[in-house]
Amino acid sequence: MPLQSHMKLISTDDHIIEPPDLWTSRLPTRYVESGPRVVEVSGAVTTDIGFTSQTAGTQMWTYEGRVFPNIALNAVAGKSPEEFGLEPVRYADIRRGCYDPHERVKDMDLDGVHAQLGFPTFPGFAGRTFAEANDKDLALLCVRAYNDFILQDWCGSHPDRLIPMVILPLWDPDLAAAELRRTAAAGAKAVAFPENPAGLDLPSFHSGAWDPVFAVAEDAGTPLCMHFGTSTRMPFVSPDAPFTVTIALMGTNSMNTLSELLFSPIFHTFPRLKVTLAEGGVGWLPWFLERADLTWERHRFYTGVNQDVRPSELFHRNVWGCFIDDTPGLMMRHEIGIDRITWEGDYPHSDSAWPHARERAEKAFADIPDEDVHRIVELNARELFSFDG
Amino acid sequence: MPLQSHMKLISTDDHIIEPPDLWTSRLPTRYVESGPRVVEVSGAVTTDIGFTSQTAGTQMWTYEGRVFPNIALNAVAGKSPEEFGLEPVRYADIRRGCYDPHERVKDMDLDGVHAQLGFPTFPGFAGRTFAEANDKDLALLCVRAYNDFILQDWCGSHPDRLIPMVILPLWDPDLAAAELRRTAAAGAKAVAFPENPAGLDLPSFHSGAWDPVFAVAEDAGTPLCMHFGTSTRMPFVSPDAPFTVTIALMGTNSMNTLSELLFSPIFHTFPRLKVTLAEGGVGWLPWFLERADLTWERHRFYTGVNQDVRPSELFHRNVWGCFIDDTPGLMMRHEIGIDRITWEGDYPHSDSAWPHARERAEKAFADIPDEDVHRIVELNARELFSFDG
Repeated sequence: MPLQSHMKLISTDDHIIEPPDLWTSRLPTRYVESGPRVVEVSGAVTTDIGFTSQTAGTQMWTYEGRVFPNIALNAVAGKSPEEFGLEPVRYADIRRGCYDPHERVKDMDLDGVHAQLGFPTFPGFAGRTFAEANDKDLALLCVRAYNDFILQDWCGSHPDRLIPMVILPLWDPDLAAAELRRTAAAGAKAVAFPENPAGLDLPSFHSGAWDPVFAVAEDAGTPLCMHFGTSTRMPFVSPDAPFTVTIALMGTNSMNTLSELLFSPIFHTFPRLKVTLAEGGVGWLPWFLERADLTWERHRFYTGVNQDVRPSELFHRNVWGCFIDDTPGLMMRHEIGIDRITWEGDYPHSDSAWPHARERAEKAFADIPDEDVHRIVELNARELFSFDG
Repeated sequence: MPLQSHMKLISTDDHIIEPPDLWTSRLPTRYVESGPRVVEVSGAVTTDIGFTSQTAGTQMWTYEGRVFPNIALNAVAGKSPEEFGLEPVRYADIRRGCYDPHERVKDMDLDGVHAQLGFPTFPGFAGRTFAEANDKDLALLCVRAYNDFILQDWCGSHPDRLIPMVILPLWDPDLAAAELRRTAAAGAKAVAFPENPAGLDLPSFHSGAWDPVFAVAEDAGTPLCMHFGTSTRMPFVSPDAPFTVTIALMGTNSMNTLSELLFSPIFHTFPRLKVTLAEGGVGWLPWFLERADLTWERHRFYTGVNQDVRPSELFHRNVWGCFIDDTPGLMMRHEIGIDRITWEGDYPHSDSAWPHARERAEKAFADIPDEDVHRIVELNARELFSFDG
């Protein structure tokens, strides 16, 4: 009985599809027209990742006159792989649990999942959409409206089941620090952050520019959650490669993040800062950490990096990984560190097993001792996010 | 005694620094001036990877009027990490074993290495320099001159110690197929090939354009050896990242290659084709292969990839990996496949342990059973490269 009935599955990476009235119901009247809202469109539609399809009528977000081709990219919970595709969808095409917290909790019950941490969709995984906007007064109101929705409505309605993660006004580190302080005081347990801000033409992890944010995160004990793909910088693939080439490689984006972080000044300046890498898996970590340490041993003398602490020590103190399916990662769990690993469900995306998450976890953990399983599925996440629901 | 004295170390990834007269002594007189030759330079020098340094006098290759800033990038065998740097060097600054086959074999004796497979340096890891040249008649003569040097001089002088790997005229797949046929008949045991030709603006692995080359390679049993970094497409890192960030991430380049190959038609069209991934390590393979299979299970229906064979099956039939230091890879050797792994020394680059390769291997293999060690250090390479020296 490796996954025993008293062990609760806490997922550290899922996705919230924003309800269509999230911003229209919260923004001041003068901003309702230019703020994010959902419109009906038809005809040829080109999706975020370049696929064009004809549609008889679908729904899209519009914001400052720009059209965003998917209300719910990759929201396939309940569909079979044969039905997967890259076409834009309507709210009516996806499960209500994607955008309604009460229905979400019902879907979690069906899935055997106790609690979830949800990343945003329309704002990007960490608020990129608002950082790219023209009117920064409106953008700041949008960020706050999202966070208020999360704190009051999404998680506020089920505080024992939904863990609140907020976003920041990334275009201004001081504003971002203030919003993190405001939301942490209001109960935020986590903050989404770009997995490589330089990929969004924001200051890098090496710049020192984010110190005000990291100082607040460290003080409040709020983990920075870095989802792969947030910066939109994907690995190089040949132009005619099938999309599977990129999907299989997405985890390398988390490797880039970890390499940037471990060779940056961040964990030396903020030794109690917590960072989570979302959706990249963990089975590559032993290999990467050995490689990072060897790189540090041989190349630290001329590259201006910290001369005293091995990268792997920083990982074991400051970073957490999570996984959906990762047989090699479970085999190597003690090399990774049993306290470094959390479980994720990825609802409603295509890696999700919904409604069979608990069933799949039972199989994955079949040969793992009880205490390790409990750490991975529940206890690490509780401690990391100070979650007692 | 896991690495027993009768087990010979065969390294499947090392580097040849071309002697200064390689092309001048072989090209027709009319081409000696415009072909590759070594010149003396001084003043500010910008290296291949963007570092500029002042030099009182160094040596560089020139070819068709273009100057190539390093005769021997990263040729540090015999130096301590404290001496590593990115400055251009002179032939007098590096060990003779870098460019003289007789001295190379003496250095191998000191290192406890029986045989080596060497990638080129000035031509790039697979002949890119000649594919980018203007005069393609000259470029073809340069490719052939390199291959003749390898077959007759470098390996010809020590056929029992140095395994011949050739390069191809990559700008024309039919010419490339002809050169592979010519050199395979003359004793070539391996051919260097771009790890992602699309990164060099050549046709991709999905294009079918390389079929003439792959057909010859399959018939001759000649492995295509793909060294990380060959296409020069590196992972995205922030502009102000220390160089260690990129060095630690180099292996992700081999992951890109593997993802492209396993989702391409190549191994379905050429089921006996052999591909080796050089220097990327192997510890990430179990994680990547599981991820590739899951991607195939969920996303094959709409992406136009092969519907019948799982990516991991292709890996276990058509692809080999190698490693220098890889504790996790050795732990997971049976998940990777004990017949899929070879050992490499990387002389004279910075990952090399010269002159302690055998000593380091003894430590790495301390807990591995004899028959597994023998497979990895010697037998797999012998079979893969049909090498009986």
